[in-house]
Amino acid sequence: MAGDIAVSADETVAWVTLRHAGKFNAMSRAMWRSLKAVFDDLGADPALRCIVVKGDAGHFCAGGDIGEYPGFRFDPVLLQEFHEDDVWGALQAMLDCDVPLIAHIQGNCMGAGLEIASCCDLRLASTVARFGAPIARLGFPMAPREAALVGRAVGEMTARAMLLAADVFDAPHMHTQGFLTRVLPESHLADHVQALAQRIAALAPQAARMNKQTLRALNGRLALAGCAQCATELIANDAAAYAYADSAEHREGVSAFIEKRPPGF
Amino acid sequence: MAGDIAVSADETVAWVTLRHAGKFNAMSRAMWRSLKAVFDDLGADPALRCIVVKGDAGHFCAGGDIGEYPGFRFDPVLLQEFHEDDVWGALQAMLDCDVPLIAHIQGNCMGAGLEIASCCDLRLASTVARFGAPIARLGFPMAPREAALVGRAVGEMTARAMLLAADVFDAPHMHTQGFLTRVLPESHLADHVQALAQRIAALAPQAARMNKQTLRALNGRLALAGCAQCATELIANDAAAYAYADSAEHREGVSAFIEKRPPGF
Amino acid sequence: MAGDIAVSADETVAWVTLRHAGKFNAMSRAMWRSLKAVFDDLGADPALRCIVVKGDAGHFCAGGDIGEYPGFRFDPVLLQEFHEDDVWGALQAMLDCDVPLIAHIQGNCMGAGLEIASCCDLRLASTVARFGAPIARLGFPMAPREAALVGRAVGEMTARAMLLAADVFDAPHMHTQGFLTRVLPESHLADHVQALAQRIAALAPQAARMNKQTLRALNGRLALAGCAQCATELIANDAAAYAYADSAEHREGVSAFIEKRPPGF
Repeated sequence: MAGDIAVSADETVAWVTLRHAGKFNAMSRAMWRSLKAVFDDLGADPALRCIVVKGDAGHFCAGGDIGEYPGFRFDPVLLQEFHEDDVWGALQAMLDCDVPLIAHIQGNCMGAGLEIASCCDLRLASTVARFGAPIARLGFPMAPREAALVGRAVGEMTARAMLLAADVFDAPHMHTQGFLTRVLPESHLADHVQALAQRIAALAPQAARMNKQTLRALNGRLALAGCAQCATELIANDAAAYAYADSAEHREGVSAFIEKRPPGF
Repeated sequence: MAGDIAVSADETVAWVTLRHAGKFNAMSRAMWRSLKAVFDDLGADPALRCIVVKGDAGHFCAGGDIGEYPGFRFDPVLLQEFHEDDVWGALQAMLDCDVPLIAHIQGNCMGAGLEIASCCDLRLASTVARFGAPIARLGFPMAPREAALVGRAVGEMTARAMLLAADVFDAPHMHTQGFLTRVLPESHLADHVQALAQRIAALAPQAARMNKQTLRALNGRLALAGCAQCATELIANDAAAYAYADSAEHREGVSAFIEKRPPGF
Repeated sequence: MAGDIAVSADETVAWVTLRHAGKFNAMSRAMWRSLKAVFDDLGADPALRCIVVKGDAGHFCAGGDIGEYPGFRFDPVLLQEFHEDDVWGALQAMLDCDVPLIAHIQGNCMGAGLEIASCCDLRLASTVARFGAPIARLGFPMAPREAALVGRAVGEMTARAMLLAADVFDAPHMHTQGFLTRVLPESHLADHVQALAQRIAALAPQAARMNKQTLRALNGRLALAGCAQCATELIANDAAAYAYADSAEHREGVSAFIEKRPPGF
């Protein structure tokens, strides 16, 4: 049971649900590949006007599926394939989607979850949702393109606090920082998102797609892709970005988590 | 009566008032052209130290003058001329002005009003002012350069919510997002802006002009002009940015507004 | 007594203290040069995992040491050397440091202090700290690279308000704008920073350094260095950025401050 991505849709609105029982919807490699396939399909549907991305069972997504990590994270080539093909493949498919995307966020929104939410256009969260990317406890850095994406979405200060101090932030903080569009009581969130999706579906769909294309073009040169490209050029192309794969620190962080003990760095 | 731009000035401070009675100061083409001429003039006055931009009769500006739209919006060439010459001509004249600009914002600050405010250096608003760009109800996207300008000023999340969901935000939200410098009770706003303009006028004027030149140069390469240029290259140069002019969706949105009925997209 | 930079360290955490008695730790030229030397040294220590930057005696840093200004500010060549070598030399050394930097901010954080804080990764402040760069009272603009640095850290609106209106902001404002990670009561700040430094020191150190390298690479192309380079090209290379050195306005601002009288611009 490596989790899956569930999709339901009516004529104009689709719901994409991250689902991994018992793991707060942690993203397995199979889920990343499925997420890409789902967005490739949904993005090709000309009738679609809004997509809601949510997690199953009261959480958005707690991060990556760490149980899988020993199988590929300690080899630089496999690690690069994981980040650049599986993870970025899915995130790029989301970023390339012309349909407005709403993130419906409850509970944990960490690491991979934060990255997935960062690809959405609007982000609505429960007052008790929590946000972070505490991978410094796991002994590894954020991949360059993912850091560009998250840094842009959460703001540089919050990104640095998440990455360097393993800080976790609450929804009101993420609202003031421009990451969340609205913060709502848990009991109101689903109804509000439902109403918002219907409202977006009633607005001009061609205009929405053109607005997304324009903002993507601006970001492409300005920041996101430019940035990611730059990161790739400066860091990944010389293979340095993934050379830490076999380091003691990386092995210790992942191993300690799996063995349910504190890491010693 | 297509509205006008009123100007008054003492030796060091000028007031520019957007004025279109009965239309919450909606910008007609004549007003856009006049706004450009006003800023070309004011920008050339070496004695000027501060310019306050405000709206007449309790509102900043509710957007474009939609009544004029059927005359030019449904032809791609005319539409491009409107956005790139009339609208951007005025906004660029504001951005090129070396004198510190204060936006004094009451009531509605929508669409064209949001763009005009985005060209100011400082933005002070009444607690009951409202901000948005709900053109998705009118069936058209924001022009690329204007989206670059607004996205930079209001933040990307707020820009996406305004454009994709027709969201309207209050002044406290716009303050946390870095769009507003101060939010004040309606009854205190005018006095506060007046005092601020006098305070700026007493500060070093050459330093202010150099600071604006520096920030413009930084933005030019970094974001605003670079972005706008990129948007123009990627979107407008192949004519795609204005090809929607004659689309059914565009006609429906504008027509429904003028006929005072809900649009059907 | 031109002030100094005090350093203390245990194996993994260092404390850097800005110290200039009677001047709220205003940065003299000697202090700028010392700050660069300190960060060149600390950055070369592979065992270091966290650096805390603070001010002595209840203030972070009130700005530059204005008493020194008549000695070099009115000559364009000397002025450029001051900004590009002394000031930027120190700031660049901080930006180049791969170790996570925490700014511990009490009292005044103005001008030079704001620039130093802007080079840190995390910024924690007392609720009663104050932030600004009121150099418009001193008759001079912010140097291009420094404006790029500060504008990025505090946000463009806040930067414009600080530079054009000499506005001073409180800690809660700077928190909403993404400049401060946390705002804490004065009595809790030191303990919180101490605990945070220890927490960072226990996290994966190689991952932290790689995250800082990635974010620096992204910024390098995106904003900070790119921006600074652009500012330098557009403004400084034609010598215009420092041509104001001998102007009446500049002399009046600095002289009035030293003579403890209001400037007349």
